[in-house]
Amino acid sequence: MSKIGVDEFEAMAQAQLPLVAQLGISVEHLEQGRAWLRLPFSDALLRPGGTIAGPALMALADAAMYAAVLSMIGKVELAVTINLTCNFLRRPVPADVIADARILKLGKRLTFGEVTLYSEGDGDPIAHVTSTYSIPPKGDEE
Amino acid sequence: MSKIGVDEFEAMAQAQLPLVAQLGISVEHLEQGRAWLRLPFSDALLRPGGTIAGPALMALADAAMYAAVLSMIGKVELAVTINLTCNFLRRPVPADVIADARILKLGKRLTFGEVTLYSEGDGDPIAHVTSTYSIPPKGDEE
Amino acid sequence: MSKIGVDEFEAMAQAQLPLVAQLGISVEHLEQGRAWLRLPFSDALLRPGGTIAGPALMALADAAMYAAVLSMIGKVELAVTINLTCNFLRRPVPADVIADARILKLGKRLTFGEVTLYSEGDGDPIAHVTSTYSIPPKGDEE
Amino acid sequence: MSKIGVDEFEAMAQAQLPLVAQLGISVEHLEQGRAWLRLPFSDALLRPGGTIAGPALMALADAAMYAAVLSMIGKVELAVTINLTCNFLRRPVPADVIADARILKLGKRLTFGEVTLYSEGDGDPIAHVTSTYSIPPKGDEE
Repeated sequence: MSKIGVDEFEAMAQAQLPLVAQLGISVEHLEQGRAWLRLPFSDALLRPGGTIAGPALMALADAAMYAAVLSMIGKVELAVTINLTCNFLRRPVPADVIADARILKLGKRLTFGEVTLYSEGDGDPIAHVTSTYSIPPKGDEE
Repeated sequence: MSKIGVDEFEAMAQAQLPLVAQLGISVEHLEQGRAWLRLPFSDALLRPGGTIAGPALMALADAAMYAAVLSMIGKVELAVTINLTCNFLRRPVPADVIADARILKLGKRLTFGEVTLYSEGDGDPIAHVTSTYSIPPKGDEE
Repeated sequence: MSKIGVDEFEAMAQAQLPLVAQLGISVEHLEQGRAWLRLPFSDALLRPGGTIAGPALMALADAAMYAAVLSMIGKVELAVTINLTCNFLRRPVPADVIADARILKLGKRLTFGEVTLYSEGDGDPIAHVTSTYSIPPKGDEE
Repeated sequence: MSKIGVDEFEAMAQAQLPLVAQLGISVEHLEQGRAWLRLPFSDALLRPGGTIAGPALMALADAAMYAAVLSMIGKVELAVTINLTCNFLRRPVPADVIADARILKLGKRLTFGEVTLYSEGDGDPIAHVTSTYSIPPKGDEE
């Protein structure tokens, strides 16, 4: 069971993650070590050729990874992204994008996971992300 | 000399890259294979602890890489990001962020570069990005 | 069904991939878009603390990705690695390492996949790799 | 000035990094936060088309990054690679490969740097690597 609730994470994200609020990203479901988030389709996100802008996909993946981290450790506001690698695989179709994030390693200080992004209703991934989060001990400023 | 002008790139970016327009990103300077872009500081970008949101930094880096690519090949609208790896190094101070992008390899179809991000007035990088762009031949839909 | 056989791939790898031969890497199983390879444990691979050397793990992952690519396209000798991102997650125990590679996107020119590495007999991944391969058309020298 | 000497690092690398010894990698020069290493050319490293095997280049980059880390912190045997991203840019010519590693961020626990690889006598990079090292405090087993 997730150590943070959907409402709790969304309130936190709305307050803390400016692009999450601007892009209208919402949480579909949380489990321990797993999170599904949704980026609603909007013409405002389109690039030439109808592709959804890459940075919007990365913002979605980063938020999904954050939710998956907090699903394991609870509400820790200082968890920060150390790195994020995004591979863009296919042109998204004009539809909502679903991110499926899961934690592959929860360490004392470093957490690693992967996020797969899909266009809703289509099984082929449009992007794949790996990311490491740091959970600093109190008072630490790595 | 850059094969695309600052005004020309900014008009293209405003029209095509939705987050560039929303975040107020502008071009400082272009040379052939090199681009400097600016993300204006705004309270709206802050995360807890005063850190500028990671996705805003990635959007800046992606736009800077795009400008550096177009500085070498001119106005090619179908250039797309294949991958982007961002390492977050230091907490940005509350100031504008400058991105310095340069191309390390221009191939026939793939272009690779790196982007270093700084807080204005501070020499230490806050983030480092590497990215590969694809320039598809006409009619190709990799 | 794989478009290349285990024996055929191993002969090719022995002849072409020098580290595969030196490290004694072998193929466990091939399916279309999926490959399992084995790195035999050897004291010669150890780092301080008993950790298997990172470059040996990366060589294993690269070979596994190559096998997975060829399982989809057959024996194409010019397929080359464009990039490889390796995240080291846990200290391997002193045992053989198994790589499980799968293709997430097969494009006309670019192929992307991920490889998960395990110590044999232990379900927790010790490393995670993503990689892009290029399959150049004849006569092309990207 | 480097906090570890060339002879000291080479003795450590020969004893600890199995692929460094096998590949004949040596240190050209060390400064604080910077290291230049050499991979001697050998037919045994060749792939089809005359390309030096990617894993040999990654082993060189990893050793160069390790030397650059130790040039700043001295002889700390538990420094370990957290991640490594390698982008392969050009086919190496049949010549020694030089790695130029530099540290971009030295933190209390995490260190980030980049490594550029060249064929000796040629200014164009053949590969670019970014990597994060962890320096665990005593008794810690992240």
